[in-house]
Amino acid sequence: METPSCGQLFLIPVPISDKEPSVSIPQDVIRQTADIRYFIAENAKSARKYFKSIGMEQSALNVAELDKHEPSSGIREMLQPALNGQDMGLLSEAGIPAVADPGSLVVAEAHRLGIPVVALTGPSSLILALAASGLNGQRFSFNGYLPKEKDQLKKQLAFLEKLSGQTKQAQIFIETPYRNVQLLREMLEVLHPETKLSISADLTGSNAFSITKKVGEWRRSQMPDLKDKPTVFIIQS
Amino acid sequence: METPSCGQLFLIPVPISDKEPSVSIPQDVIRQTADIRYFIAENAKSARKYFKSIGMEQSALNVAELDKHEPSSGIREMLQPALNGQDMGLLSEAGIPAVADPGSLVVAEAHRLGIPVVALTGPSSLILALAASGLNGQRFSFNGYLPKEKDQLKKQLAFLEKLSGQTKQAQIFIETPYRNVQLLREMLEVLHPETKLSISADLTGSNAFSITKKVGEWRRSQMPDLKDKPTVFIIQS
Repeated sequence: METPSCGQLFLIPVPISDKEPSVSIPQDVIRQTADIRYFIAENAKSARKYFKSIGMEQSALNVAELDKHEPSSGIREMLQPALNGQDMGLLSEAGIPAVADPGSLVVAEAHRLGIPVVALTGPSSLILALAASGLNGQRFSFNGYLPKEKDQLKKQLAFLEKLSGQTKQAQIFIETPYRNVQLLREMLEVLHPETKLSISADLTGSNAFSITKKVGEWRRSQMPDLKDKPTVFIIQS
Repeated sequence: METPSCGQLFLIPVPISDKEPSVSIPQDVIRQTADIRYFIAENAKSARKYFKSIGMEQSALNVAELDKHEPSSGIREMLQPALNGQDMGLLSEAGIPAVADPGSLVVAEAHRLGIPVVALTGPSSLILALAASGLNGQRFSFNGYLPKEKDQLKKQLAFLEKLSGQTKQAQIFIETPYRNVQLLREMLEVLHPETKLSISADLTGSNAFSITKKVGEWRRSQMPDLKDKPTVFIIQS
């Protein structure tokens, strides 16, 4: 018997704002997405919402959802269609999957199983924010979410500021949108007035903005409205 | 007299492979690019080649080129059209400008002058490679080019491997394409057999691939053909 040749695992980007897909997803990527029938998603409901927005026929689609509490469980089984020769797609809640979300567990398993992985172009709030910041695009670090607890948060901010001074890296981090205002307040309290702070919010959206100022200047400015907006913070000292 | 309101500085993405723009540039971004008349480019000739590929009328366009040897010189003057109320576009040689290229100097000056900066979605080889690697997308560093000199290169590779073990960051770096094969050879010599090494080449192109294996496995494998191909390397230990 012949072994069926593997399908490929496509990393499917989705929009990061409520604007239509044509703003941030290339036409050929929309077309490639629409050809796939088997998907793995961080959230099946929002994946299906996206499929609808690009005109895909829902009934023919199979969408497996990653376990919220234990995302590493069951991945081998979810990838079975690819081992059977079917192309598959991986989606996250926003942007490019497997960056700043649990999708890399699926990609790692695909590599172990010998399934070819193909990343498709789409929006990355981290890279868009970095480009729009004017900070060091030749050397940077992404730190995910900072600690929630106030004292630890202050320590981590001071650490990243010092590290940035030593390494010349732009230091990127994100926060759950409802905590943005609090994080900004802590930053303006803890960071040195000469440290540069870039704030990008609602990227690719109707109210997108990217502003870079020194912390001392931010302290004298009107605060931008970050409440509940997806925001990327970058500091460089 | 009224002060004219500023134009905006759009960060214009361009393809990273020789495939047509629809593969990696969203339709609305192509449309927005075609509406702009004033550009600043890392290389005017390749910028014009891109404008032609999306059907723009060349004669009406103004393309200022960054100084190759002193990219920071003359930027203030190049941004004058934006201060006069014209929208402008910034382009690099490949991908999203101001990431892994000198464009951030232009963006920083735009922020100083109060010119609004708008990043448009396009391909980023760093993020596509990271997503396709299955390595840590929640914590990573981009290190630009590593040292050319052999002993320094080995030291830097050992340093990044150790750092990755301590911080759990994926460590990303790139090389001038004609030096890829040499860099890969050094990596396989210096790195620990258990360290994961991801290689992504010709992303979004006809011969794109992303492969992640442990260094020990790479040593026993046939080497991928990286000669003269834009390649992103990522290690994690």
